[in-house]
Amino acid sequence: MNLPTVYGMAISGNCYKIQLLMALLDRPYRWVEVDSAHGGTRTQEFLARNPVGKVPVLELEDGRTLAESNAILCFLAEDSRYLPEDRWQRAQVLQWLFFEQYSHEPYIAVARFICLMLDQDHPRRSELPRLLERGHQALAILEQQLANRPYLVGSTPSVADIALFAYTHVADDGGFDLSPYAAVRDWLARVRGIPGFVPLGA
Amino acid sequence: MNLPTVYGMAISGNCYKIQLLMALLDRPYRWVEVDSAHGGTRTQEFLARNPVGKVPVLELEDGRTLAESNAILCFLAEDSRYLPEDRWQRAQVLQWLFFEQYSHEPYIAVARFICLMLDQDHPRRSELPRLLERGHQALAILEQQLANRPYLVGSTPSVADIALFAYTHVADDGGFDLSPYAAVRDWLARVRGIPGFVPLGA
Repeated sequence: MNLPTVYGMAISGNCYKIQLLMALLDRPYRWVEVDSAHGGTRTQEFLARNPVGKVPVLELEDGRTLAESNAILCFLAEDSRYLPEDRWQRAQVLQWLFFEQYSHEPYIAVARFICLMLDQDHPRRSELPRLLERGHQALAILEQQLANRPYLVGSTPSVADIALFAYTHVADDGGFDLSPYAAVRDWLARVRGIPGFVPLGA
Repeated sequence: MNLPTVYGMAISGNCYKIQLLMALLDRPYRWVEVDSAHGGTRTQEFLARNPVGKVPVLELEDGRTLAESNAILCFLAEDSRYLPEDRWQRAQVLQWLFFEQYSHEPYIAVARFICLMLDQDHPRRSELPRLLERGHQALAILEQQLANRPYLVGSTPSVADIALFAYTHVADDGGFDLSPYAAVRDWLARVRGIPGFVPLGA
């Protein structure tokens, strides 16, 4: 059976976004693990799929490839409940997806990368105080948005929730204490409760 | 006459994206200049429009607000020639919009900000070598994509071109020499030639 392929790393939140959406949509796909830490995204073969040299990459049955986790989410979610039909709601979903990539992931995911993957005396550990400060700013924005709504946009989960869940739920790996963010913690539990949910690294 | 309002800074490439698309679509709007360098995005009034405290913000006639330049572009371009109808092409447009915010703007726009706005002896100038290195990586990706096509996606300009044009065409402000990027320079000229084009700061 010919299936779409996802090239990814099991530990990556950006790749997990795609796994989670595929599971929620109950769509079959092939997973190819790429070892980005040991040059797997810098081979000629991989760069032909994504010149930027990053996972995840979605490869369709006919060989066409798409990069950027949040673009892949939108593509896969079209005509599903996870991408609103309403034009204004869709615009808000995009707003949160861009927020995630600009103001959330570069701090919360990068802090996690440094803490999990680099030695205790690695010079990049000096970046952590700034990453924590900026990451907490992003978490405060999420807390404010979720204070009086169940999901980021509208009353049902969308790809915005999937994208923001990916690194928020493992923020403690990067040294973030989520206990002050009650609404965020309730929302994390709500996402975990969506039928079909799969955990990171499953 | 009631019009949508754009809150922005004339010098900002992210805000210019909206000005350029509005001009190309020949849509009337109101511009409110916000002095982000002097706290204009940190007032209670502004944060009510965008809690993230960034320009641009689009405010509709009924008061609803939308942040994130590339989300605003997609919202405004729907049902126009600048957002493809074809699902795959639209996915590629999103791919380039996320590339812009993650792998291009944080280097090319930030280098420009440091060079234009900060003193000669400002400590952030030490970031410039890394910003230049990463920015050139982004320019090389653009050069590769544009080597054999007129625009980033398909055969006509889209919001992907508008978003990437915004900071690429002023990359020299941040110390980037565009002379090695022939395809990028041809593409910049092509964008400038679109009927209705307006320059940054007009």
